[in-house]
Amino acid sequence: MPDRNRTVFFISDGTGITAETLGHSLLTQFEGIRFRQVVIPFVDSVEKAQACLPRIAEAAATADGRPIVVTTLIDPEVRETIRRSEALVLDFFETFLVPLEREFGMKATRAVGRSHGATNSTDYLRRIEAINYTLSHDDGVSNRDLGEADVILVGVSRSGKTPTCLYMALQFGIRAANYPLIPEDFERGTLPPALEPHTRKLYGLTIGAERLSRIRNERRPDSRYASLENCRYEIEQAERLMHRYGIPSLNSTTKSIEEIATTILQDVKLERHAY
Amino acid sequence: MPDRNRTVFFISDGTGITAETLGHSLLTQFEGIRFRQVVIPFVDSVEKAQACLPRIAEAAATADGRPIVVTTLIDPEVRETIRRSEALVLDFFETFLVPLEREFGMKATRAVGRSHGATNSTDYLRRIEAINYTLSHDDGVSNRDLGEADVILVGVSRSGKTPTCLYMALQFGIRAANYPLIPEDFERGTLPPALEPHTRKLYGLTIGAERLSRIRNERRPDSRYASLENCRYEIEQAERLMHRYGIPSLNSTTKSIEEIATTILQDVKLERHAY
Repeated sequence: MPDRNRTVFFISDGTGITAETLGHSLLTQFEGIRFRQVVIPFVDSVEKAQACLPRIAEAAATADGRPIVVTTLIDPEVRETIRRSEALVLDFFETFLVPLEREFGMKATRAVGRSHGATNSTDYLRRIEAINYTLSHDDGVSNRDLGEADVILVGVSRSGKTPTCLYMALQFGIRAANYPLIPEDFERGTLPPALEPHTRKLYGLTIGAERLSRIRNERRPDSRYASLENCRYEIEQAERLMHRYGIPSLNSTTKSIEEIATTILQDVKLERHAY
Repeated sequence: MPDRNRTVFFISDGTGITAETLGHSLLTQFEGIRFRQVVIPFVDSVEKAQACLPRIAEAAATADGRPIVVTTLIDPEVRETIRRSEALVLDFFETFLVPLEREFGMKATRAVGRSHGATNSTDYLRRIEAINYTLSHDDGVSNRDLGEADVILVGVSRSGKTPTCLYMALQFGIRAANYPLIPEDFERGTLPPALEPHTRKLYGLTIGAERLSRIRNERRPDSRYASLENCRYEIEQAERLMHRYGIPSLNSTTKSIEEIATTILQDVKLERHAY
């Protein structure tokens, strides 16, 4: 019989985002256990590691069973301190640094906080520029410099364009503009004129009518805008436009923002580089 | 002598974000090697795995030395297909799933694409709501519903408020408003009146004058706004306001967006839950 609850600590000398990301992937593979997750970032000294031990001991003393500790810790002393706890400790760095050191014939530098540390200033400015570009080209607010976009998402209102664009900018430094397709476009039967010079950069997001109606109802309950009938009409018309212009597209209904962004970058062959 | 270049493949049955995040952390520990990184997402069948093999073989045939392959692959057959390549294969999932299975006394479900798969609809809507809230409360555009913010960042223009807020919303589902501190506020010597009811939610971002001047110069070259002298003045005044109101703050100068966001959430004791 599996335990019903488990406490999982993500302990990192940096932000803990790496530990949490991989740890979360692993935990989703175990059904029927409720994981209480605790992230402890910036544990970069033996003292801070020692301060974690009572928290782990406290979790161990509950009915939840032995805690799990996932670590991304570079300093051997800090890591050893955590290892003295009664938890099952999974060490993400050490496990893979050793085979890599052997492969490269060199020692890892074991510098703390590299993974999400401040990168060099040029990289930072490029990322910030992508975010600013994306924000100022959200929802068709500006047609200026549309030619500078890496990709331009089109789709009906609330099809997921904005979160996807922001994610691409933040995570990958992509300049992602987005432009809504609205009833006027459907009546005219053509793309918004501002987009005509950039059809090769366009990528369409479509969505199931039920899902769209639910999302729109959160904003404007019981409006015509949110009605299933109107959602169906707009989606059908938008898909017709995408088809007519040969715009590649994907259906966002059952996809996460991460999956949508990854699919788009793959389809339009944009090289991605995670920050 | 270490090799000078290495090709690293991140091969995943999902988005590849987990593989890339952990892999990138590991690679930053090896200095003097230039890594050519290739992400291959959505490898969820033996056929797709087989299609990766020629690409790995091609990299192996170059002067760069044996490629590294980092995988997050759940299906054993898919994984075995990749293992047949001539690369050094580091398997992030299998390595840790086995000890977890032993610990929990149960088998992992080995369902593909869980980590960044579409989560349930309520979670999705909450995340989208956080993004929308954050966008509509960027740069003080709206004072409405400021009470609903989880945190409100304050600081001079270009101190990093917007990227940090967007990151907190996207990555952690935090409703993060931000409000600029401007010369009028400094002359008056008080916070913008709209913020007065919410002082306990405020968090200050400050920044080095040289860095701020550089960032502002990208936008408005050679303006008074971007001048080092003006940057120094604004920062000093903003810090004085933060101090006067007892607003916790951090200096963003040498920090990445991830580090700033993590520090804020830790300081204001907001529970974080990564998407």
